[in-house]
Amino acid sequence: MRKLLVCIRYNGTNYHGWQVQDNAISVQETIQDAIEKLTGVREGVSGCSRTDSGVHANSYYFHMYTQSSIPEKGFFRALNKYLPKDIAVLSVKEIEDDFHARYSAIGKEYVYKIWNKQERNPFLQNMAWHYNRGIDLNLINEALPYIIGKHDFSSFCAMGAKPGDKTRTIYESDVKLKDGLLEFRFYGDGFLYNMVRILVGTMIFVSEKKIKPCDLPYIIEAKDRSEAGKTSPAHGLYLNKVVYNQEAVGV
Amino acid sequence: MRKLLVCIRYNGTNYHGWQVQDNAISVQETIQDAIEKLTGVREGVSGCSRTDSGVHANSYYFHMYTQSSIPEKGFFRALNKYLPKDIAVLSVKEIEDDFHARYSAIGKEYVYKIWNKQERNPFLQNMAWHYNRGIDLNLINEALPYIIGKHDFSSFCAMGAKPGDKTRTIYESDVKLKDGLLEFRFYGDGFLYNMVRILVGTMIFVSEKKIKPCDLPYIIEAKDRSEAGKTSPAHGLYLNKVVYNQEAVGV
Repeated sequence: MRKLLVCIRYNGTNYHGWQVQDNAISVQETIQDAIEKLTGVREGVSGCSRTDSGVHANSYYFHMYTQSSIPEKGFFRALNKYLPKDIAVLSVKEIEDDFHARYSAIGKEYVYKIWNKQERNPFLQNMAWHYNRGIDLNLINEALPYIIGKHDFSSFCAMGAKPGDKTRTIYESDVKLKDGLLEFRFYGDGFLYNMVRILVGTMIFVSEKKIKPCDLPYIIEAKDRSEAGKTSPAHGLYLNKVVYNQEAVGV
Repeated sequence: MRKLLVCIRYNGTNYHGWQVQDNAISVQETIQDAIEKLTGVREGVSGCSRTDSGVHANSYYFHMYTQSSIPEKGFFRALNKYLPKDIAVLSVKEIEDDFHARYSAIGKEYVYKIWNKQERNPFLQNMAWHYNRGIDLNLINEALPYIIGKHDFSSFCAMGAKPGDKTRTIYESDVKLKDGLLEFRFYGDGFLYNMVRILVGTMIFVSEKKIKPCDLPYIIEAKDRSEAGKTSPAHGLYLNKVVYNQEAVGV
């Protein structure tokens, strides 16, 4: 059996997230359908992360086994043909058996987009959160460095998430505002359930002066979800990059 | 009666163009519905141009008469509330009675977007034409200057368009390619039916070496639609700007 690593880009608007579920269309199921049409065999695919309903991906990886002998390039082209237009295959690569789309990842980058003008943007309807109050970038830039580093991020994890170690490391985070589009970026070794959306909601509270930048260490310390800001809407969130040990992917 | 000039931005994907028509939803009708909800009176609105099915607008102007005394700001906010999310009101301004959204325009700018990568872009599905062959920017940049100036553009007008003078002046035109997005820009005193889409299709023929840059003067001279390139798809086209005599708009 060959093992393939596939990179896709998708617009999550019409999907109930990555994960297969009853009575709702998911990215995973849509891909499994397309692969079945292509190879004639239903193969399970294993993704690099779960994404919520409406969340997008600029790069998302999954691995799969297949008995098909279609070469990488042909697989790439044919899979694109069988997929709907809101999912695009970016690459297909044969990988070693010990490589895992999720567990071999050493870093992930998320981007969160906010349309920050008074009037809504008809071209970013489901692709950025429309927040029309003034943004205090100075305050946000003062607060953001506090989240960098290795912390127990329990305060930034959705209640009801599965138990387990909530320690994660954020390597980099920044924010920029250009032509009305505010973009947060977070790069870390992994993220808890809703973590990026809660981080963004907390930075918005900072901008609204509901939370002071210097409160951040105490909010982290509290390990209490209710201390952080609101969870920002799903449709502004993009899984932007997944980083693997390059040797493992065979780049 | 007050006369108002309203500027909107719309994503044309779900509309059969600007103009009201039977059995199909148009931007004009959607706006008239919203105004009726707002003022209680059905008022006709008069647009700055017709746009085809699927064509977008970054700025589109219409004028209207109303007996409502709602001030400009309130009208702006309320109209936005009654409109669907793919149409946004950008401004509302009271104007003199002799001002006309269409006939007072002295210039219009169109932009045409092409997604020029091998793989499709799930975020630009209906917002750029996906053309995945290589682009020869040098050839296009050599051809583009020939269309600048005052010409009879019959060769660049859809067959079956209404008769009349086909002379138009293009003041500026350029093209840029950034991160896979190719963008044409055309600024002129007015455009014939499908003119921008045929100009773009012709430039693509230039890139494909089906037409030489130095053929352009002869194609214009021929006044024959069949000499120019194909009509490019509607969903890459954006009405980008409408220029009025500033005094007239009262800016």
